[in-house]
Amino acid sequence: MSQTSQDTVTLADYVFARLHQLGIRSVFGVPGDYNLRLLDFVEPAGLHWVGNCNELNSAYAADAYARIHGVSALVTTFGVGELSAVNGIAGAYAEKAPIISIVGTPARATQEARTNVHHTFADGDFDRFAAMHTHVTIAQTNLLDPRTAPEQFDVTVQQALIHSRPVYVQIPADMVDVKVSAAGLKSEISLPAIATGDNESKVTGRVLELMHSAKKPLVFVDGESRCLDIVDEINELVKVTGWPVWTSPFGKGLVNEHLESFQGIYNADLGSKGAKDYFESADLALVFGPHFSSTNTALFSTIPKQANSVSFSERHVKIGTELTRDVSNKKLVAELLKQLDRSKLSRPETPSNSGPAQPSTEPSGLLTQKDFYRFINPLLKPGDIVMGETGTASHGTRDLILPTGSVYFTAVTWLSIGYMLPAALGAAMAQRDSEKWKNRSGSNKGGEDRVVLFIGDGSLQMTVQEISTMIREKLNIVIVVINNDGYTIERVIHGRKQTYNDIASWRYLQALNMFGATEEEVANNTFSAQTWGGLKEAMDSETLKNGKGVRMLEVFMEREDAQGFLLKLLNNQKARESSKM
Amino acid sequence: MSQTSQDTVTLADYVFARLHQLGIRSVFGVPGDYNLRLLDFVEPAGLHWVGNCNELNSAYAADAYARIHGVSALVTTFGVGELSAVNGIAGAYAEKAPIISIVGTPARATQEARTNVHHTFADGDFDRFAAMHTHVTIAQTNLLDPRTAPEQFDVTVQQALIHSRPVYVQIPADMVDVKVSAAGLKSEISLPAIATGDNESKVTGRVLELMHSAKKPLVFVDGESRCLDIVDEINELVKVTGWPVWTSPFGKGLVNEHLESFQGIYNADLGSKGAKDYFESADLALVFGPHFSSTNTALFSTIPKQANSVSFSERHVKIGTELTRDVSNKKLVAELLKQLDRSKLSRPETPSNSGPAQPSTEPSGLLTQKDFYRFINPLLKPGDIVMGETGTASHGTRDLILPTGSVYFTAVTWLSIGYMLPAALGAAMAQRDSEKWKNRSGSNKGGEDRVVLFIGDGSLQMTVQEISTMIREKLNIVIVVINNDGYTIERVIHGRKQTYNDIASWRYLQALNMFGATEEEVANNTFSAQTWGGLKEAMDSETLKNGKGVRMLEVFMEREDAQGFLLKLLNNQKARESSKM
Repeated sequence: MSQTSQDTVTLADYVFARLHQLGIRSVFGVPGDYNLRLLDFVEPAGLHWVGNCNELNSAYAADAYARIHGVSALVTTFGVGELSAVNGIAGAYAEKAPIISIVGTPARATQEARTNVHHTFADGDFDRFAAMHTHVTIAQTNLLDPRTAPEQFDVTVQQALIHSRPVYVQIPADMVDVKVSAAGLKSEISLPAIATGDNESKVTGRVLELMHSAKKPLVFVDGESRCLDIVDEINELVKVTGWPVWTSPFGKGLVNEHLESFQGIYNADLGSKGAKDYFESADLALVFGPHFSSTNTALFSTIPKQANSVSFSERHVKIGTELTRDVSNKKLVAELLKQLDRSKLSRPETPSNSGPAQPSTEPSGLLTQKDFYRFINPLLKPGDIVMGETGTASHGTRDLILPTGSVYFTAVTWLSIGYMLPAALGAAMAQRDSEKWKNRSGSNKGGEDRVVLFIGDGSLQMTVQEISTMIREKLNIVIVVINNDGYTIERVIHGRKQTYNDIASWRYLQALNMFGATEEEVANNTFSAQTWGGLKEAMDSETLKNGKGVRMLEVFMEREDAQGFLLKLLNNQKARESSKM
Repeated sequence: MSQTSQDTVTLADYVFARLHQLGIRSVFGVPGDYNLRLLDFVEPAGLHWVGNCNELNSAYAADAYARIHGVSALVTTFGVGELSAVNGIAGAYAEKAPIISIVGTPARATQEARTNVHHTFADGDFDRFAAMHTHVTIAQTNLLDPRTAPEQFDVTVQQALIHSRPVYVQIPADMVDVKVSAAGLKSEISLPAIATGDNESKVTGRVLELMHSAKKPLVFVDGESRCLDIVDEINELVKVTGWPVWTSPFGKGLVNEHLESFQGIYNADLGSKGAKDYFESADLALVFGPHFSSTNTALFSTIPKQANSVSFSERHVKIGTELTRDVSNKKLVAELLKQLDRSKLSRPETPSNSGPAQPSTEPSGLLTQKDFYRFINPLLKPGDIVMGETGTASHGTRDLILPTGSVYFTAVTWLSIGYMLPAALGAAMAQRDSEKWKNRSGSNKGGEDRVVLFIGDGSLQMTVQEISTMIREKLNIVIVVINNDGYTIERVIHGRKQTYNDIASWRYLQALNMFGATEEEVANNTFSAQTWGGLKEAMDSETLKNGKGVRMLEVFMEREDAQGFLLKLLNNQKARESSKM
């Protein structure tokens, strides 16, 4: 049966309608010669175009948007644009953020004739950049054929949603206006069900048995729980069982930190002895969304014992060492919640979860890493997205107690410094855009949209220009710049006195002025503190606490001031130095 | 025969000694966990470490350093660093700049155990990023074995020198301190000779015959002449023959613009009728270093007719359509110069090369693209490196008459906007460092080292933070910012009124303040002009003319002000718009 003209749309309309159906409302990217016509279709589709200063920043922003909203979109141009973005795509692959990365490519005739156009190596080869992307995306497609383009696009997007990883879509310039079947648009892209429907029930009984018989159980929440879409269920399970719950750094922010049995990030040797004793002698660990990279596990020291673990991950459920594949984690956890016999659950005595008290600090005392995060904690408000960039900030922010309805970003595995500033832009856009975010459980509906970013000076320099996009988009973002005169994260690892860990001295607070804030914002929205008294004064400012727009607070700390795991690394280095003398 | 300990050095010492032998004096990059130990060896080897704000900027800077000095070096860290840089490496591949890109990778034991360390995808795969680099580098090596590492490194570097393209070198962290044979260091890495030594003489006779019989000859100099190392010989040939010489945009700056027969960039339909008539009816074109991409040939309209051409390129010499491979261009051109019989050369009447006169402009008149470059031309001084970033700047600067000893950078094929600002840093470093540059023929030895960069606002935003490295390195760079409120280069192609071609409004001249210039520089080194009178005043300033350090001049032009080829594109677009009404 042939299609009538009513059943067709342009390919660009099809693509952007699909993005809209996914709840995406903002698209990140940079215009370029091969995507200009494509961009004409963005705003008419009800999507907002966020033009970034460069493509790496776009990719970082899209990554964060995906982590908040569940999926995001990026448009770059062939060659120069997509390669500038590729490190951001790789990070999204490593830490599971589903970006739909769309690349505008030269027209089909140009490619077929192997014409030596710009943004190529003038050698007629148009396939290199797609080949490079096979290493950093979970699926790739090239929309060359109007007959199959809609289905190719849908199947590729579905892979992004299933695996929570970026995908790569090429759209030749001459395909933008080509008519394709609109039939697919009648139903949304959905996750396929698992046909063998009985694996969940097979597993449920065995897990329940373990839960009912455990004497010293614990719950361990890691960051891939976000991708499994089981965060609400996990919180419910913790509430129902009252079992102690720890997270990894990646898992922080997924569990309500005000639940009675919440323990914080598990720190093994660097945490409390009580916590370690309990964790190590537990006879059951329910492990959700494991992501066991060295950096997310303090060099593999915080991983629950496999023999006593039931772990829920994308590919399988694992009871001890036994795998069951093709299980819906969402169905399984819901089933556990339903069938749980509360009367059979042990209520173990759990380690205390009281963190360190508010530090006692002299107003004239200089700021220190040790006390800074606890001191600034009251600045946070319900619903804030809190971000700690790779470096001392990612370690320090792990001690923050997050308000209800907050989520948290920290360094996990990719650790590309510079990520977190454009990520703050992307997260703030999603916070403003996303119905899914607004309707999440545990959110504080009365809260103002706001992102609070903690970032070191070295990281800030990498991607600083994206502050201008924050200003242009009138987002509420507090940027706390930790000025410790260089790459302290590298100094603690190696070369603490070496000049290669130095950076140029900037006047960071000039950023609002340079990047186009209003005169009023320039006058009122910057703060600086070297002492606890100065910090208190800034924190008491109505503008910083409850104001709008982009605000910057610069705080000064010593070059070699490090805490926790970083202090351990620093001390190791000093010991090596002494042993050489 | 076994080696004694006197014959060994650490691998890091070997590598950096090799770079030093190549005349490299500055190394670009960003520290990262997997390259820190390696960086300890940079300064002791007599090399200066230029820590950039991010890795893409490093790669761009290294690209320009290679174009000025002949070869350059970049050090990044595994995964995050190398992928951030990869678009810069691709550009160097496209436009032939030999960067030795060194990546510090995890220790061999970590890789062999497939440990899930950071900067990986936590999947035990350490080979992805090297695989990606096979698409954008001419040779790759992984220095895993102390027995072969020196030779592997040498052979790889040799490929960079032969092909004038980037190469990729991985050094695992634990290989840095490993002892290797130092034997190779006794002789420098040299270009291999062509063993079949008679191809040049076979060709020489035939080319001479054509030269002696030509009635209407021309010389066409394209940018790959730089890589063939025949720039001096070409200038000599032009001087000796007196034949009219045109360049491509890529070739501009390679020929002394004050030679009598110098014609400028060949512009086909957009240039003078006299030039076109001569060019099209020539019976011989000596074509040096052809690089015939669409953007370097005004959409293939400026390519000399193949039937009448003798073309000298990396892979072969082509007489008409007949190829001879394995020829040393350097030997060949020297031979031509030696054997040339001047009495047999025709001295054709050539088109006039007088450019447009100094524009007559009212002091109160607003700046226009049409007259701006001619007006500002007197600012240039002998020995300046002049750079026109992709956009209106790359087109406008093509009309500049370069002083003696100057070279020129413009958009050629890769056209990655944002490139030219870090490239200005790299070029200025090479200008300061390079003995080869200082000793080049045609240079003005009395001249001060200086770079003059023309760049649009959209491009500047991409990589702006590298201004801080220019300041830190105390380089003499004049940055002329063309503020035309967005991506005018894109507006003229498509979407002239579309918001996606807008950018955020910045206070550009605040850059010196933000990025750490001294109070005095902040006060004195910025200039702004909207009118010809204002521009004249700035140009008369001693600080701008003859001062030191980084200076910024912001000039304002209309959003849709375009000239030459860009005006043609804009008019095409307007015609399409009207035809739709």
